Amino acid sequence: MKAARPARVPRQRLELEVRREQLLAAAFDLFVQRTYDEVGIEDVARAAGASKGLLYHYFPTKKDLYRAAVQRGADLLLERTFMPPEVPPVERLERGLAAYFDYVEEHGAAYAALMGSGVGIDAEVAAVVEATRVEIADRIFGALPLPHVDVAVRAAVRGWIGFVEAIALDWLRQGQPTIQTLRDLAGAVLTAAIVKAAGASASPIEALADPVKTSR
Amino acid sequence: MKAARPARVPRQRLELEVRREQLLAAAFDLFVQRTYDEVGIEDVARAAGASKGLLYHYFPTKKDLYRAAVQRGADLLLERTFMPPEVPPVERLERGLAAYFDYVEEHGAAYAALMGSGVGIDAEVAAVVEATRVEIADRIFGALPLPHVDVAVRAAVRGWIGFVEAIALDWLRQGQPTIQTLRDLAGAVLTAAIVKAAGASASPIEALADPVKTSR
Repeated sequence: MKAARPARVPRQRLELEVRREQLLAAAFDLFVQRTYDEVGIEDVARAAGASKGLLYHYFPTKKDLYRAAVQRGADLLLERTFMPPEVPPVERLERGLAAYFDYVEEHGAAYAALMGSGVGIDAEVAAVVEATRVEIADRIFGALPLPHVDVAVRAAVRGWIGFVEAIALDWLRQGQPTIQTLRDLAGAVLTAAIVKAAGASASPIEALADPVKTSR
Repeated sequence: MKAARPARVPRQRLELEVRREQLLAAAFDLFVQRTYDEVGIEDVARAAGASKGLLYHYFPTKKDLYRAAVQRGADLLLERTFMPPEVPPVERLERGLAAYFDYVEEHGAAYAALMGSGVGIDAEVAAVVEATRVEIADRIFGALPLPHVDVAVRAAVRGWIGFVEAIALDWLRQGQPTIQTLRDLAGAVLTAAIVKAAGASASPIEALADPVKTSR
């Protein structure tokens, strides 16, 4: 890697990014399974098959590693639920919600750690989780058939995100009801919350008959 | 206090309980304002006008003091929102919800610390917060006009508690919309969530026309 030929630089950069990603994935898995204090840099290095030196190269302190790992966990959830703008708004909401619950089903421990504070909270980690919610709220605002988002609609959407997180975390503990029931419930609650909020602020609500279909 | 006469023992016990309560109140205030590491036993003693010795008498370690303070914060929220069983069910829900938002308005920092993880999270503190939600959910189950609470209704209520927490925390950050709008929104969402959940499980929903009046 030292005697890099110019032509190979891009490929090396890619490899370095992949390596960083692997380190973060290994770190996030460990931080999810144990408390912050219980995770040593050695443990992460061993799990990732890397040297401690490489880890310190990317992340000078354990705190840096921890925050980057939490950020990566949050980024994965956002990537997974992203719907491109060419998808029609209502479909973005439906498919985004379905993708969100798919993520919960497949990465339960990671989700519970992120949204249920299982990774432990300091101000910066709380900011990462909060930024994730802000991004999800912005996507919803962009998909609502409303002329503008006022404070009541804003509150309704933030509340709804809290609703979805609570039913997802509860499902991870209880294993019930079905994910389909949760999706239907979340869809019905989003509709009700937006209609009520838009009505409270005397916005036109005609277009809101069914922002999310609540059954298929 | 050393030469206690028998007749004064009950009063002394009361005084000791009041003293313990004062220590916890002072501790909770400090843990809300700063991080766990930043709060020293000396600070709590000074704020409560007590000796370090007295604090250690009640709480052998800082961790003990911290957990007792968090528990007291959660207990206050539950006491404040408690409605006696002789109050009719729908009114219990309405008045309980109003009392909940009153608490949020008056004790914003304490509420944000408890429900927004501001006091820091370890497994025992998370258990205190979770037990608070379980108690609130049980009260709601007891006030719903349903023959039984199935898994879908259970999820709906847990989700709704997440909705209320999210709009309350958002209101504490934004100061908008009005508390009355939040109460109306929360009432409408509870109705919609329960009707949807009870419908999903084919329970009779006739009695559910309006479990919480959504405007006054």
